[in-house]
Amino acid sequence: VRVIVWDGNGKRPTGADEIEFFVARYDIGPPPAGALAGLPKLRAVQLLSAGVEHWVGVQPAGVPLFSGRGVHGQSTAELAVAGMLAILRRLPAYEQARAAHRWQREPSGGLAGQRVLVIGSGDIGTRIATAVRALEAEATMVARTARPGVASLGDVPGLLPDFQVVALAVPHTPETDKMVDARFLAAMPDGALLVNVARGALVDTDALLVELNARRLYAYLDVTDPEPPPANHPLWDAPNLFLTPHVGGGAPGWHERAFALVRDQVLRFRAGQPLINEVVAGY
Amino acid sequence: VRVIVWDGNGKRPTGADEIEFFVARYDIGPPPAGALAGLPKLRAVQLLSAGVEHWVGVQPAGVPLFSGRGVHGQSTAELAVAGMLAILRRLPAYEQARAAHRWQREPSGGLAGQRVLVIGSGDIGTRIATAVRALEAEATMVARTARPGVASLGDVPGLLPDFQVVALAVPHTPETDKMVDARFLAAMPDGALLVNVARGALVDTDALLVELNARRLYAYLDVTDPEPPPANHPLWDAPNLFLTPHVGGGAPGWHERAFALVRDQVLRFRAGQPLINEVVAGY
Repeated sequence: VRVIVWDGNGKRPTGADEIEFFVARYDIGPPPAGALAGLPKLRAVQLLSAGVEHWVGVQPAGVPLFSGRGVHGQSTAELAVAGMLAILRRLPAYEQARAAHRWQREPSGGLAGQRVLVIGSGDIGTRIATAVRALEAEATMVARTARPGVASLGDVPGLLPDFQVVALAVPHTPETDKMVDARFLAAMPDGALLVNVARGALVDTDALLVELNARRLYAYLDVTDPEPPPANHPLWDAPNLFLTPHVGGGAPGWHERAFALVRDQVLRFRAGQPLINEVVAGY
Repeated sequence: VRVIVWDGNGKRPTGADEIEFFVARYDIGPPPAGALAGLPKLRAVQLLSAGVEHWVGVQPAGVPLFSGRGVHGQSTAELAVAGMLAILRRLPAYEQARAAHRWQREPSGGLAGQRVLVIGSGDIGTRIATAVRALEAEATMVARTARPGVASLGDVPGLLPDFQVVALAVPHTPETDKMVDARFLAAMPDGALLVNVARGALVDTDALLVELNARRLYAYLDVTDPEPPPANHPLWDAPNLFLTPHVGGGAPGWHERAFALVRDQVLRFRAGQPLINEVVAGY
């Protein structure tokens, strides 16, 4: 295999016309639209991220796109569970109390015995469900279409009133844009918790702020809209909210998993075998 | 069944001589030494707590003592996992950053792929091990004596260098008093995490503070020695430490579990069957 190091920005490197397999950098956005157009031999673009929405309009027509599904799933699902437990056991309040040298118990719930709705049944959603079940909560998964044991997106409005925790693990697409709107939030019961480790734009931030400021719902967000929130944005000081700066992926081990994925994909490509993680039309 | 409401303090109520089965209150300490002595028909004392060490010297000789094992185990194990994840994913630092309106990522590890040593193989330890395994970490359990798949307390010094996380889930006894001392801590590798949701006196606080202040180890403590720490105690501002105010037990559902335990124990007692959760000599 001949390797050309080029991130898709700037002028095309020597030998670009020979590129068959393009691996995108994880730590920067996609190259500008058109950067990969006209590479005559390009047959595959491999991302190292789970989310692919930024590649809409960049990916050359007719070239298949492959996601980094599995590279960050473990780490992202773990963060969802960490943030869920943090809110349910009031850990942010205890960190504030510690800073003030106060030993003061807060009224608190817990995860065990709760019902958790996991919206998204890919790698991340499946891992979230497995972990919350081990913590003795009941998990119900939601996929685009129902299958045995998995509800459909269309079932969600009817399910929400029965769940104390809702975790989002779906890609951001036109279909899921602001799916958590005022009506969705209104259907969640008092004191329920929304967890978003997926994409900020899944949630209508203004509608969420209304519920948080009324102290009716709780939220844990690793992703926000806008992201990051400007310094004066009301998210920073909203009550009932725990916030982390988009740190779901990129945990230790992701390099190794990314290398392994790319190696396996390149080997499949050379052998003429089907690649995994192909992003299907309409993602 | 005739029920007499008396918490063991103050003068004995009418009918005390008929008491066969004493249920201790959860929310106060044990009655004064001697309070239960000389109750002629007393045959069982049932606690609602997992820890029983405060009853040494209170329990009348010859009367069996039964713990509340199982009543709080779920909630305590869940808190151990919550605090473990909080430290490993740097959630306290993010809460501080949020308060300062800062969107700033911290170098961070995670639980997945780590090796976790769970010292204690009772209800709480078993639940901790189950949960961390579901979060894709490797758990090794330690009991007083080794059995297949479980190490012994004597093995711990040799095991410590290989574990990034050590969780304590043993009762406080003369044998376990300050078991986590300077030598124990020195055997833990750089950057390792100590989790204590059991009893503060299992840990030599001064020795732990040396490691924390050197920023060599991390700790999550739900219990401390002294507890609570006085307002000027160095634990409050120690680096690498996350602290909660002894909130492992008492989570929602504990009343129901306590009622169920006491009911089942009373039914066994009346039927002349063996009771569960007997605290054996030498606890």
